[in-house]
Amino acid sequence: MNQSKRIKAFADEHIPALTEFMLAYARQAHQPRLADAMSYSLAAGGKRLRPLLVYAVAATMGADTTQLDHVAAAIEYVHTYSLIHDDLPAMDDADLRRGHASNHVQFDEATAILAGDALLTDAFALVSGAPQPATVRVALTSQLAVGAGSRGMVAGQMMDIAATGSSTPLTRGQLVRMHAHKTGALLLAAVRMGATVATVSDADDEALDDFATAFGLAFQIRDDINDATKSSTELGKTAGHDETAGKNTYVSLLGIDGATKALAKQMRSAHLALERLSVPAPLLEDIVAMLG
Amino acid sequence: MNQSKRIKAFADEHIPALTEFMLAYARQAHQPRLADAMSYSLAAGGKRLRPLLVYAVAATMGADTTQLDHVAAAIEYVHTYSLIHDDLPAMDDADLRRGHASNHVQFDEATAILAGDALLTDAFALVSGAPQPATVRVALTSQLAVGAGSRGMVAGQMMDIAATGSSTPLTRGQLVRMHAHKTGALLLAAVRMGATVATVSDADDEALDDFATAFGLAFQIRDDINDATKSSTELGKTAGHDETAGKNTYVSLLGIDGATKALAKQMRSAHLALERLSVPAPLLEDIVAMLG
Repeated sequence: MNQSKRIKAFADEHIPALTEFMLAYARQAHQPRLADAMSYSLAAGGKRLRPLLVYAVAATMGADTTQLDHVAAAIEYVHTYSLIHDDLPAMDDADLRRGHASNHVQFDEATAILAGDALLTDAFALVSGAPQPATVRVALTSQLAVGAGSRGMVAGQMMDIAATGSSTPLTRGQLVRMHAHKTGALLLAAVRMGATVATVSDADDEALDDFATAFGLAFQIRDDINDATKSSTELGKTAGHDETAGKNTYVSLLGIDGATKALAKQMRSAHLALERLSVPAPLLEDIVAMLG
Repeated sequence: MNQSKRIKAFADEHIPALTEFMLAYARQAHQPRLADAMSYSLAAGGKRLRPLLVYAVAATMGADTTQLDHVAAAIEYVHTYSLIHDDLPAMDDADLRRGHASNHVQFDEATAILAGDALLTDAFALVSGAPQPATVRVALTSQLAVGAGSRGMVAGQMMDIAATGSSTPLTRGQLVRMHAHKTGALLLAAVRMGATVATVSDADDEALDDFATAFGLAFQIRDDINDATKSSTELGKTAGHDETAGKNTYVSLLGIDGATKALAKQMRSAHLALERLSVPAPLLEDIVAMLG
């Protein structure tokens, strides 16, 4: 993904400090190997897209972004746990993640399961200890838990596993539903959490939800296209894994050309949703453009 | 464990309705196999000790126990997830749990990992959606997350795994610290959550914390004695597993006699802590007596 100068400057303002914050928190685990395994995956980097959405939505809607590290860390903790568990031998069995050995390869399977469990649980300790008022923290907890749990991300992962290698490929509707859960729900939670720390009208809330939904789909289509077209070095994980594993993807369903068109359409929808906001949203426009 | 008539009547008043509530919530998962796997382990029963502590502490401290199903369900969700993940092949590799096939045997490993992840995440959706005021829900979220996460239960599980089969057995102090995390922290969270929905003085809060700490230790010693002395049928899980697996237990450290004495001592401490409360605590006395 390319970043414009504007979004890059915004990210540079928030993300390095966030990473420090996350690592300092993880180092307080009461068992050293657990702290190491949590820190290992938190430090592995990645785009920090979900925290970036939290900060950028909050900034767009006029909130103070200097008080958001607990909230941004919480959603990145949840994302990081999900990668660790997804990579496990019983799941995607992936040895490589973000250009490094995946957690269970670097440590072992038991440690990776526990590091994931700890990151997921600690996410809620982070939100409950955030500097926002209690009513805001309760709303954030609910958004994060609903987006990540049995009605969100985990359900999507189960849909993916249930469909992988099946002789009947998913229909487009089923594929959209799977990804709306697997990746969309947590991206939606990020956007909602950013809006929740600001004061947002119902109309803006709706526009942001529509933005998040279109962006989530676009993000997944871009991910599927990358998996089919880029090298392992470029991706930081094993390329072509989707096809090898018999995964249902936008590329397997629509081909590269069809997927590219679908990506452009969702990026356009995300853009149109942002245009409905009562305020200009250059940072969010930049984040959409990163998918192009 | 034997239950007196009084605690049995109290449990009969709350636990069957709680089980219905938990299963109804799990059935709303957005993927049927995930809902099945979550329900399977929730329905497998067990003593519901943590919910019972929530209800009993709340009742003792004068709170309305008719509004506690979200809170009690949340802690039982966390306990149930921990059993599913602990039983996994990479962890304790246990085929039997509560007299039934463990989750990954009944379903498969990927499903069991995801069912555990979903139960853990949904616990926080339950707490954030509880009928208590926002300030109370935030405190409950924090107690549950801290008790279950990298400074509580998960750290204890990691300590256990790190020490299992090691040529150097744990000292008594290390064993106490491990169990204070592995089982004690969530029992302490149950007691604190029951107190948090009531209005409790600082002195009562301290007495309840001391009660929870002693009770948690007593509970673990009883569990270790049971593992060494009871049959698999009586336990509902594989007996003698601790010794076979080279686990550090109170029995391996102190022998059966020493462990029995240590149990009596902790039960006495729990009783003395309850006597310091500003109110009589017959239900909690009954729960302590269940360990005898």
